[in-house]
Amino acid sequence: MHRGLIEELVRKNDSRILLAVIDGLGDISIEELGGRTPLEAAITPEMDSLAAGGALGVHIPVARGITPGSGPAHLGLFGYDPVTCQVGRGMLAALGVGFDLKHGDLAARINFCTLNEDGIVTDRRAGRISTEKCVELVEMLADIRIKGVEIFVIPVKQHRACVVFRGSGLLDDLEDTDPGLAGQRPVRVTGSGKSHRIVREFQRKTARILKNRNPANFILMRGFTLYREFPSVEERFGLTAAAVALYPMYRGVAGLVGMDIMKCSSDDIPGQVKAVKKGLESGHDFIFLHHKPADSAGEDGNIQAKISAIEEFDRALPSFLDLGFDVVCITGDHSTPCTMKLHSWHSVPVLIHGGPQRSGYSSAFSEKQALSGALGSFMSTEIMPLLLASAGKLAKFGA
Amino acid sequence: MHRGLIEELVRKNDSRILLAVIDGLGDISIEELGGRTPLEAAITPEMDSLAAGGALGVHIPVARGITPGSGPAHLGLFGYDPVTCQVGRGMLAALGVGFDLKHGDLAARINFCTLNEDGIVTDRRAGRISTEKCVELVEMLADIRIKGVEIFVIPVKQHRACVVFRGSGLLDDLEDTDPGLAGQRPVRVTGSGKSHRIVREFQRKTARILKNRNPANFILMRGFTLYREFPSVEERFGLTAAAVALYPMYRGVAGLVGMDIMKCSSDDIPGQVKAVKKGLESGHDFIFLHHKPADSAGEDGNIQAKISAIEEFDRALPSFLDLGFDVVCITGDHSTPCTMKLHSWHSVPVLIHGGPQRSGYSSAFSEKQALSGALGSFMSTEIMPLLLASAGKLAKFGA
Repeated sequence: MHRGLIEELVRKNDSRILLAVIDGLGDISIEELGGRTPLEAAITPEMDSLAAGGALGVHIPVARGITPGSGPAHLGLFGYDPVTCQVGRGMLAALGVGFDLKHGDLAARINFCTLNEDGIVTDRRAGRISTEKCVELVEMLADIRIKGVEIFVIPVKQHRACVVFRGSGLLDDLEDTDPGLAGQRPVRVTGSGKSHRIVREFQRKTARILKNRNPANFILMRGFTLYREFPSVEERFGLTAAAVALYPMYRGVAGLVGMDIMKCSSDDIPGQVKAVKKGLESGHDFIFLHHKPADSAGEDGNIQAKISAIEEFDRALPSFLDLGFDVVCITGDHSTPCTMKLHSWHSVPVLIHGGPQRSGYSSAFSEKQALSGALGSFMSTEIMPLLLASAGKLAKFGA
Repeated sequence: MHRGLIEELVRKNDSRILLAVIDGLGDISIEELGGRTPLEAAITPEMDSLAAGGALGVHIPVARGITPGSGPAHLGLFGYDPVTCQVGRGMLAALGVGFDLKHGDLAARINFCTLNEDGIVTDRRAGRISTEKCVELVEMLADIRIKGVEIFVIPVKQHRACVVFRGSGLLDDLEDTDPGLAGQRPVRVTGSGKSHRIVREFQRKTARILKNRNPANFILMRGFTLYREFPSVEERFGLTAAAVALYPMYRGVAGLVGMDIMKCSSDDIPGQVKAVKKGLESGHDFIFLHHKPADSAGEDGNIQAKISAIEEFDRALPSFLDLGFDVVCITGDHSTPCTMKLHSWHSVPVLIHGGPQRSGYSSAFSEKQALSGALGSFMSTEIMPLLLASAGKLAKFGA
């Protein structure tokens, strides 16, 4: 895709787009399902009806053979090249807990760990301390002051926390201090930059505070990332976008590209429907709706749970569609094959309904039909142009 | 594909990959075969069984509409962009005769030609002199000495030879001296660089030696290429690779990307099986196996011979597979349609078996099924990432 081509052609109109992401949707043939995938085995009359009246295809999340994390995978769906727009682990951790990152913030993941008397890491996860313990330790670190930066330490879960340094002139040219393996010393922060000095001092001060807090007597840091704001979907695509997602990480990635994050009054489908409704009523013409359970089921290798998650989404679909969308896209951010219990590189089925589609090629929403669908196969970043075009939001290129 | 993305994600493991290339495999519908291709007409139970349990797709060797030579076509299969990693004609000629090129060598193709008294090229191929004659003429040129370089002149076939200049500071910014058409003068080597001076002197000295050797009384040079070593597949993909190929050119291209070239004790299938076995036993986790006869048959327009070549490979396949591979890829480097008797730009069927594949879409290995296979259509350079992913040799991208 030529840089800036879409941006030049964007024109606004009143059409409303729904991008519904069933996390980890794609799968591969499963013997127990007679060679079908969970999507193929699931009973999904609503999506099948949209498939029949719309068009199917498959998207490649990052590049062929590349297994994406959730961050890059979602950026692709939002029309951002996931390789040039990298979202580091530190940034994701901070976004994941809903921390309000500002442009120029330096974020990193923290693991509480155990050091022995010789300074060797004996446990990179400090015996997986409880989340309560983590909160308690983080509170002890809250008093650390370092000249030239504000410091935010945020507990995440068990031994996991994250740290954000806020100040001018920070850079993320820092190596992980986590050696990656027990039995080694933490990696020393060398280098004379401002960020290096601050991180070194932070590490020294945390060590002093944690000294007698065995097993969590030290911290390891990794994934230093400087938070750079990306151009928003409003700037790039003229979309006033809102995100309805229960998990902080997906809200975080949506926030990265300038989507408004809608609050859900409850964690169930009615709560999400209300949030989408509110999003539309407050003038948004693009809604990103995130559905997590299919991915979790895939990572657990739980075939039936994945089928159920997909069926649950299908039953909920009419409540969302009734709110009035002109173009609806249903896809996944990546595949999470149950037999792999992992994200994978396999292509992901895409359904687009609404607007002038080359319809009549498909009777159901499935990997198989998507592979021979009217849309063909394309990069995830090409979904956004297809949605804009379907919604009449792209002008003709050239005379 | 983003430069360096794959390289960053590569991780080593013990999985073994076989890349079997049936040269010129792809074809187009042939009337005599009832509209089928040789691959579709051939009886190939082994490949069909792999197709059923694996996944099919088609690759585009260089770009749509581009007919590749064997050099670029193989580079693509090895994961090297064939346009940025150019293998010039001179380099190919030298590799093709098994000449051991060193980094910095300047190579060019030579044609013996006929000049008339006015210095006009009357025959660019010197009446296609015999190969014996060519060898004799090359021996006469062997005594040429030029200060600052070693010179190697190597006979190829009929009027064709090649020359390699070895010395420091050589560049390949030289135009062909071959005017491309009879009735014109050879193109003069202008320019004041070291390479220009040397090539000019070489041309003058050959002219003096050949003066009375009508019809081969002059040489034309083309395709000046500096031999630069490419980063190896070991550096790029963490693969310890070996090549089993009977023809020098394919061994040459494999050598270019750092594959170890296995010797075959005999030119038949058992000899190649032994060589592959030895490759695996000596610690290689990637084997490139080259099968030539299908391409030769295609270039001869010999439909039955192409079918037989494919069937011969299919019969041989179990002996290779029995050696123990985790991921097997069978494809061609390009299409060589029998009705064209030439390489062509048509896409080439690809079969990948092993690792988590979206299988169950295909029942036979054929152009038709490959076009609607689970892998879709992709560039030849994307095969390597797919093989690495299938073999579990690529980590997840991003969190």
